[in-house]
Amino acid sequence: MKIGVLLSGCGIYDGSGIHEAVLSLLMLDRLSVDYECFAPDNQSDVCNPITRDKLPHQRNVLIESARIARGKIEPLTAFRVETFDGIVIPGSYHDLSEPAPAEITDVICRMVAAGKPIAATSTSAMWVADALNKIDIPAKITLGNPHYYADNQALNQWIQQAKLREINVVDADAADVVEDDLNNIITTPGYLSSRSMAQVFEGIEKTITKLIEMVTLVMNT
Amino acid sequence: MKIGVLLSGCGIYDGSGIHEAVLSLLMLDRLSVDYECFAPDNQSDVCNPITRDKLPHQRNVLIESARIARGKIEPLTAFRVETFDGIVIPGSYHDLSEPAPAEITDVICRMVAAGKPIAATSTSAMWVADALNKIDIPAKITLGNPHYYADNQALNQWIQQAKLREINVVDADAADVVEDDLNNIITTPGYLSSRSMAQVFEGIEKTITKLIEMVTLVMNT
Repeated sequence: MKIGVLLSGCGIYDGSGIHEAVLSLLMLDRLSVDYECFAPDNQSDVCNPITRDKLPHQRNVLIESARIARGKIEPLTAFRVETFDGIVIPGSYHDLSEPAPAEITDVICRMVAAGKPIAATSTSAMWVADALNKIDIPAKITLGNPHYYADNQALNQWIQQAKLREINVVDADAADVVEDDLNNIITTPGYLSSRSMAQVFEGIEKTITKLIEMVTLVMNT
Repeated sequence: MKIGVLLSGCGIYDGSGIHEAVLSLLMLDRLSVDYECFAPDNQSDVCNPITRDKLPHQRNVLIESARIARGKIEPLTAFRVETFDGIVIPGSYHDLSEPAPAEITDVICRMVAAGKPIAATSTSAMWVADALNKIDIPAKITLGNPHYYADNQALNQWIQQAKLREINVVDADAADVVEDDLNNIITTPGYLSSRSMAQVFEGIEKTITKLIEMVTLVMNT
């Protein structure tokens, strides 16, 4: 069994959420699952994570993602659907009004077409639902609970629009997972529904455990 | 009880090790311990974590550390020994031949003088031992086991020299901790003795648990 981990930068507001990404890798290692990290090899905007201000330069997404992967990472163009049995997409904190990077959308669509499971935390669930929507598959995902997303205008708008597109957005707490058994998708709200890392980890523990169960089932059928 | 977490950048080869830092924060949150993150507000060299090459520009240590702290961090100059009952220093991957940042050495010495416990993972144990050596206290720490550090020339040299300075460097595996009960110091080898995040987390679980035990003991005496 081999799992691909799709990263897109390093850190809150301009890349993959470091905590959600590290905790996902921890769970894969705890379950003795072989994994490889990938990220798009392109330039992206940078934010000061204290002030949230956009900085006047860009950084390379692959190189920054390599920080989370401790140097061991491949460009996303090297990802082969036939080599991997499932993927994990840790949540990222890019501007929610911007779509997912095209390369990531492409990998999601190809994995779903191959019937291979996908786990996504926090905002990545949105990327998965958007990708599936492009190929007319209405996904079932979670992006947290209304208590949290009511204050997040961009997220709230996306959820309202998603419902019009028949995406099934289910309320859940950070320690919970939502399973879309029809499309082999598992999502957890991560920091969208909690400020406690322990709670976020509980959700990620369940998410990765469920992903590996789904992958095992798919491989055995 | 309040714990300070001392960061110094974000990621392998040029900052605090992301995994060791995140796993330390996870344990603090799991134990419901109140903590605050700090980092030096100065410029530092940047490495490409894939090639390990030094890049031709510098980054601000406080801003990069804020990625690990999810934006909530203070400059190290704002750290007050009287406000904190203990500190955690996650390992970093700066050039091992370079000394610890002066501000961090200063905080370590002031915490030890106040009898307050310190937990350090991987290379930070070296910073703690060096700081104590400056005030003529021979610390007991671990930097892993010979099977791993034999191949690391800079680390091996530091250990040989440390022994001449009466620093007690004890062999240990990644899942182990070494306690210096005389000076209230707890260290674990982290990635210096393992490539498995699950093993590194086992050591960090024990380290932070022991730190909180030590802090509780100090507060009650």
